Amino acid sequence: MDSEQRKSALALIQQALPDLDWTVQAPKVKRLSRDFHWFSPVLKQQLENKQADAVVKPRSEEELRLLVQACVRHQLPLILRGGATGNYGQLVPLRGGILVDMTGFNQVCALGDGVVRAQAGIRLADIETVTRPAGWELRCMPSTYRLASLGGLYGGGFGGIGSINYGPLGAPGNVLSVKVMTMEAEPRILDVPAPQALLLHHAYGSNGIVLEVELALAPAHRWIERLDVFDDFTDALDYANAFARSPGLVKRQLALFAAPIPSYFSHLNGHYQATQHAVISVIAQESEGLCTNLLAKHRGQSAVRQTADEARDANASLMEYCWNHTTLHALKIDPTLTYLQTAFNYNNYRQQIIDMAALFGDEVISHIEFLRDNDGNITASGLQLIRYSTEERLNEIMQIFRNNDVKINNPHVYQIEDGKQGEIKSDVVSVKKCLDPNGLLNPGKLRGWEVRDTLTLDNDPLLLADQ
Amino acid sequence: MDSEQRKSALALIQQALPDLDWTVQAPKVKRLSRDFHWFSPVLKQQLENKQADAVVKPRSEEELRLLVQACVRHQLPLILRGGATGNYGQLVPLRGGILVDMTGFNQVCALGDGVVRAQAGIRLADIETVTRPAGWELRCMPSTYRLASLGGLYGGGFGGIGSINYGPLGAPGNVLSVKVMTMEAEPRILDVPAPQALLLHHAYGSNGIVLEVELALAPAHRWIERLDVFDDFTDALDYANAFARSPGLVKRQLALFAAPIPSYFSHLNGHYQATQHAVISVIAQESEGLCTNLLAKHRGQSAVRQTADEARDANASLMEYCWNHTTLHALKIDPTLTYLQTAFNYNNYRQQIIDMAALFGDEVISHIEFLRDNDGNITASGLQLIRYSTEERLNEIMQIFRNNDVKINNPHVYQIEDGKQGEIKSDVVSVKKCLDPNGLLNPGKLRGWEVRDTLTLDNDPLLLADQ
Repeated sequence: MDSEQRKSALALIQQALPDLDWTVQAPKVKRLSRDFHWFSPVLKQQLENKQADAVVKPRSEEELRLLVQACVRHQLPLILRGGATGNYGQLVPLRGGILVDMTGFNQVCALGDGVVRAQAGIRLADIETVTRPAGWELRCMPSTYRLASLGGLYGGGFGGIGSINYGPLGAPGNVLSVKVMTMEAEPRILDVPAPQALLLHHAYGSNGIVLEVELALAPAHRWIERLDVFDDFTDALDYANAFARSPGLVKRQLALFAAPIPSYFSHLNGHYQATQHAVISVIAQESEGLCTNLLAKHRGQSAVRQTADEARDANASLMEYCWNHTTLHALKIDPTLTYLQTAFNYNNYRQQIIDMAALFGDEVISHIEFLRDNDGNITASGLQLIRYSTEERLNEIMQIFRNNDVKINNPHVYQIEDGKQGEIKSDVVSVKKCLDPNGLLNPGKLRGWEVRDTLTLDNDPLLLADQ
Repeated sequence: MDSEQRKSALALIQQALPDLDWTVQAPKVKRLSRDFHWFSPVLKQQLENKQADAVVKPRSEEELRLLVQACVRHQLPLILRGGATGNYGQLVPLRGGILVDMTGFNQVCALGDGVVRAQAGIRLADIETVTRPAGWELRCMPSTYRLASLGGLYGGGFGGIGSINYGPLGAPGNVLSVKVMTMEAEPRILDVPAPQALLLHHAYGSNGIVLEVELALAPAHRWIERLDVFDDFTDALDYANAFARSPGLVKRQLALFAAPIPSYFSHLNGHYQATQHAVISVIAQESEGLCTNLLAKHRGQSAVRQTADEARDANASLMEYCWNHTTLHALKIDPTLTYLQTAFNYNNYRQQIIDMAALFGDEVISHIEFLRDNDGNITASGLQLIRYSTEERLNEIMQIFRNNDVKINNPHVYQIEDGKQGEIKSDVVSVKKCLDPNGLLNPGKLRGWEVRDTLTLDNDPLLLADQ
């Protein structure tokens, strides 16, 4: 469908549904069609001219249903937008269409003991505002939790803060079910329990419209946020690793930043020297007493220390210096930087981290996040900063990591299978075939859809026939 | 000091402290001098004729202080007794003396957010009765939690239920501090923070009199207790292992029992066949939904299912079939059995479990507990049941395990270093030298004390000079 055809389809839809909350001014639509893919110079260039034809912010499921019906009738693409904090252009429409701002769907539907069900457009921090008084908080969330939506985390995210305990969001037990609207002439509403629900996870909204997500929660602790500094990188690594690996030291977040990364933290860097390496930890109050000894043992010094309550009141959480916020703080200071996403081997990540840091020197700067993998192993991921020269060199760097048995989750690609997913998954494509038979949801992102004729597809991947 | 000398010393002490709560009738003293070391036919024989000369149950710290003073003056051994649920003769006096029943010290001293401080003689279950309404429970406890005392767990225990999350009790962060009385002519009271506090852990009360223990707590969940059965042992193993290794499946306890162990559970065995293998799991309510799929995948069936509240009300928790309760249930049915304590390798415990089960056939019956080790790795320990023939064959079996890279924590020895500790630790001996310079506490248990002249001892192992 070319631009002219889309324009006339859009006109017909607007005519049929004039009461929807439309945004059509091109600059505003373009702005809303962006996320944080500009962290990648490669994606920045590739997605520069991509945008929606219009934006709609539904006020109700009924409005969304009418819009879906209309888009199916006129074969216009539909792309979901949450908090727009993605890093891979998850929401950037590749072939125009209507961008649906989901942030009107922002209610907590049900709060149980250790379980919450909320609408996809709610901000993650707003979920915790409801759950925390009951003693619960999110099991894993990105550093963008103040802006990021639940649906965005589910549709395009991975995990983050809390993954040191619960692994990635996709690990069994973290997501319990989703409620989905199909992209059909007569849209259906489906309740999909885990594990099938996970077939819609990290699919960028390309195989169903997630309306609600039911999450298992973590018990809340009184957290202390700390930034500790070290003159020696290996000392900092070993301090963080000792904390990560001690099952009796309760934590929510643990990250290591090689110099000069801490110097990019402009609100904090008065507390230490630019040559120092840092560890940010969020640890339970009852575990903090052990820091003194552990710090002394690894020749570290306390630089910043605050309670999570203080941090929240001041909108100054150290969690907002971790995961991809690190990249953001760095790019604000030095826009020539970009980043990697690497997964070290759980069996020898310590040595790999040291080796890779030594191998690249100043060109690749270690930012290491500690987490559990899907099998419960404690391991480390890198969101290394890269002094960017060319796309060719960037690919070369990634190849060198792979050659050293460090997995690359390439953040410089916009197709789902080229990133974390790693390969075409026929089950994920089967879901799209069932819920979006015309291929209208976020077209161009799911490579498997383009080659669906070569795949063996399941007619009922969500086991709906069993319900 | 021979029996006659002890008798006259005892007479002098009784004369000086007539108001203490004395037990002196030999049969009663003998009964109080027993624990569950009879699980081991070796220890049963070795400790058969060992007992205290008298038992005292102090009503106050002042009474205990007077008793300590008197014992030091007359050089009479003093041995601490908690719930008497130990398995290695921890409390059995090797050289007579006064057995101190600590169960009068049974108060919770302070409950904070995630922290409790309680007296050594309190039963573990009674601590939870206080902490649970505040949303907290014990991080790790033996299956004997209804009888076992806090001081007993600290002085002679390891961990157990909850160790799948927090590792052994001795892992950093689980114990925060202890309050200790010294065994001196003028007894001192010391507050010893972790990590130094751990030098008194698992020392059988041989290097200090622990009066109070401060523990970090775990947030309470609504737990579900399940017993699921499998026709195939590997299916049962893989089910348990999948549960153990999934970071998003929240659990407190996970154990695997090869047939015919489940048939020894006489209150449960109507729910399954004697040929079936069982997995007992204690899982969070919010995680239970995933069992159906996981069970089906591993060809398992639900046999028993109850909430922890129901179990508590009925005094019928499935936790009391795990850890060394398994051994107890088995020995009740077949007194010719005994047991092992093995630590599999975290890197290949699944294969080791299968191999060792195949190697010994019916002679060694797999009872496997899943837990985290001190470095946060998920791994497995065995409390295998043994069809006992001779001590020689028992030692041969243990050697075969060692030859297959499975560590043995020998439960058939009464000296501290021969069991879990594995070697003489000069720091532990240094503590005894400082707090019990006359070697009166539980004499004969700490091998390192006998050879103290050959060790380099620290004059201040608890860093008291820094306080």
